[in-house]
Amino acid sequence: MKFTIEARDGRARAGTLETPHGRVSSPFFMVVGTAASVKGMTPRQLREAGTQVVLANTYHLAVRPGSEAVRDIGGLARFMGWHGPTLTDSGGFQVFSLAKVRKIGPDGVRFNNHIDGRELFLTPESCVGIQENIGADIMMCLDVCPPAKADRDAIARSLALTHAWAGRCREAWRGGTGRQALFGIVQGALFEDLRRESAETLTAMDFPGYAIGGVAVGEDTPDIRRVVDFTAPLLPDAKPRYLMGVGTPADLIAGVRAGVDMFDCVMPTRHARHFQAFTREGPVNLKNARHAGVERPIEEGCDCECCRSVSRGYVRHLAMLNELMASVWITIHNVRFYLRLMEELRQAILAGRLDEVAPTLYPPDPF
Amino acid sequence: MKFTIEARDGRARAGTLETPHGRVSSPFFMVVGTAASVKGMTPRQLREAGTQVVLANTYHLAVRPGSEAVRDIGGLARFMGWHGPTLTDSGGFQVFSLAKVRKIGPDGVRFNNHIDGRELFLTPESCVGIQENIGADIMMCLDVCPPAKADRDAIARSLALTHAWAGRCREAWRGGTGRQALFGIVQGALFEDLRRESAETLTAMDFPGYAIGGVAVGEDTPDIRRVVDFTAPLLPDAKPRYLMGVGTPADLIAGVRAGVDMFDCVMPTRHARHFQAFTREGPVNLKNARHAGVERPIEEGCDCECCRSVSRGYVRHLAMLNELMASVWITIHNVRFYLRLMEELRQAILAGRLDEVAPTLYPPDPF
Repeated sequence: MKFTIEARDGRARAGTLETPHGRVSSPFFMVVGTAASVKGMTPRQLREAGTQVVLANTYHLAVRPGSEAVRDIGGLARFMGWHGPTLTDSGGFQVFSLAKVRKIGPDGVRFNNHIDGRELFLTPESCVGIQENIGADIMMCLDVCPPAKADRDAIARSLALTHAWAGRCREAWRGGTGRQALFGIVQGALFEDLRRESAETLTAMDFPGYAIGGVAVGEDTPDIRRVVDFTAPLLPDAKPRYLMGVGTPADLIAGVRAGVDMFDCVMPTRHARHFQAFTREGPVNLKNARHAGVERPIEEGCDCECCRSVSRGYVRHLAMLNELMASVWITIHNVRFYLRLMEELRQAILAGRLDEVAPTLYPPDPF
Repeated sequence: MKFTIEARDGRARAGTLETPHGRVSSPFFMVVGTAASVKGMTPRQLREAGTQVVLANTYHLAVRPGSEAVRDIGGLARFMGWHGPTLTDSGGFQVFSLAKVRKIGPDGVRFNNHIDGRELFLTPESCVGIQENIGADIMMCLDVCPPAKADRDAIARSLALTHAWAGRCREAWRGGTGRQALFGIVQGALFEDLRRESAETLTAMDFPGYAIGGVAVGEDTPDIRRVVDFTAPLLPDAKPRYLMGVGTPADLIAGVRAGVDMFDCVMPTRHARHFQAFTREGPVNLKNARHAGVERPIEEGCDCECCRSVSRGYVRHLAMLNELMASVWITIHNVRFYLRLMEELRQAILAGRLDEVAPTLYPPDPF
């Protein structure tokens, strides 16, 4: 996997990532398709919205239909009819947030999955094996992500395990086909020294890319900003940097300015299912009575299929009835909003105008 | 509204219907978009699937957002972002099937709607007025549709009211803009003499088109076939004939052979939400274990976005998880299946090969 930085503006970078399923312009946002399906959009609609990469969750796919089933039907891209680049997470985050964890030991984590209750044992080696079956272009190391409020000792112990597991994932991956990339994940919660230690340990293992994990797991926005600001520069300059599971449009803008290249978040799709649309003026709840009868689109000037087709008043009508298409229409808009935001950030970096452009793209944080 | 018959094959007809929103080739199937939204498809996806006409339900739109709201936002086609032809029913069927009816009198029907319980009074005149607000290309007369099991006296009384109301709708419509067409609805349940009386009474009123109502309201399939067979030829030959709310692919084939030009049914969209797909071999339940891992599409040779994009095994995976896109994918397929069925029936009529082609399009009824 080749990553080329084409331009810089402050700490922000614009680049190109080459994957087996195509070239990706950075910085970029990955649309979340948990069970190999983006809720509300077909692959063609995703492509037309400007989607470059789809992320799927290893945990969900490993439970159903099973990673072998995805492999047997030709791998993730073919399985979901999305013929572009893909990424899978390690499944670790869901194990700790969704499943009933039985035991975390040096070898791995034993848990009952939250879907059918079956007991599973996830090790660094099985995590890589499962992701190889699923076949995404980018795989992630199995890590331990403690709650933001855990104490320093607990964070340090988790970190040691994360590093040991990263080394074993790296070894397991070395034995694989080599067609898929594997990223290391820096942890360390809010502690700058632990984040530094984590970045150094993982950098020494020489991964094709690096992620900042354990962000937006319960901490306040200023803490999110602070951690991203001090962690991003600790990661190798020449490799892609991925801020996992973050966040609001304002988070993305801040992340890009801190030097992050890759993002993913359920926010555009999940908020759509709660009738919240993102606009340049901030979020909008489409059930609000003030949208009744409004003839203009959700966002003036937006080029998405929703804003080109129907009015805000119409989407509000569907939202009031909990019609299936309310979610679908808002998802189409939100995904395009996120992707366009990244396109505009990239253009601003290429033009050396990021300081000027960034504040116009979304309202500043309310603090 | 101009209707031209281009070819005949037995009693079947292939023609063209000209509406203010465009030309429609018949016979045709109208996709149901109850609240001005086809559950699971955007207008663009509808157009690409070959949709010619979308049907919306007056009852639902009159309750929410109200017919004036639809009018104020530019009428149904603009409201829903579907710029092709549309039809609205009278709302009567839903009043009798969904609402709590308080009183049916000579003037109209008083009921509490099932959504917010508000009491409403629907008269022939208000029914036309509401539909004029909504602005579909084709409107329907307010009729009374008794249950299939009602006795002959009840049917005859309902029929007298239906005829009186048809006359009043006709009068109310005469005072309108004239841009929208109004169809009369023949009732009479399973009684051939009542159907004949109804057809004669309504024909004398000279509507732009005629519907067969009160079919598939609880009676058995042989009765549906019998009523359609003897009623269709009673309707004026030169006008479009519409079989309301029917039905299975086999029902559509039989209807076309009986001389019907227009159909609508919730079946392709509603069954999709219960994971049932229509294929040339009959219906298929995609939750069935036999579809697990199957790499071929829902239907070989189908040109829909679903069958061109993803496998049967993948849709089954989504169905097992009750993923939003399971319904969407199957809806896309089912709508295309219905529309393609009608296209193939039309081609067969034009080629004079209906007897030969019809049996190949769907399995015969199981009786």
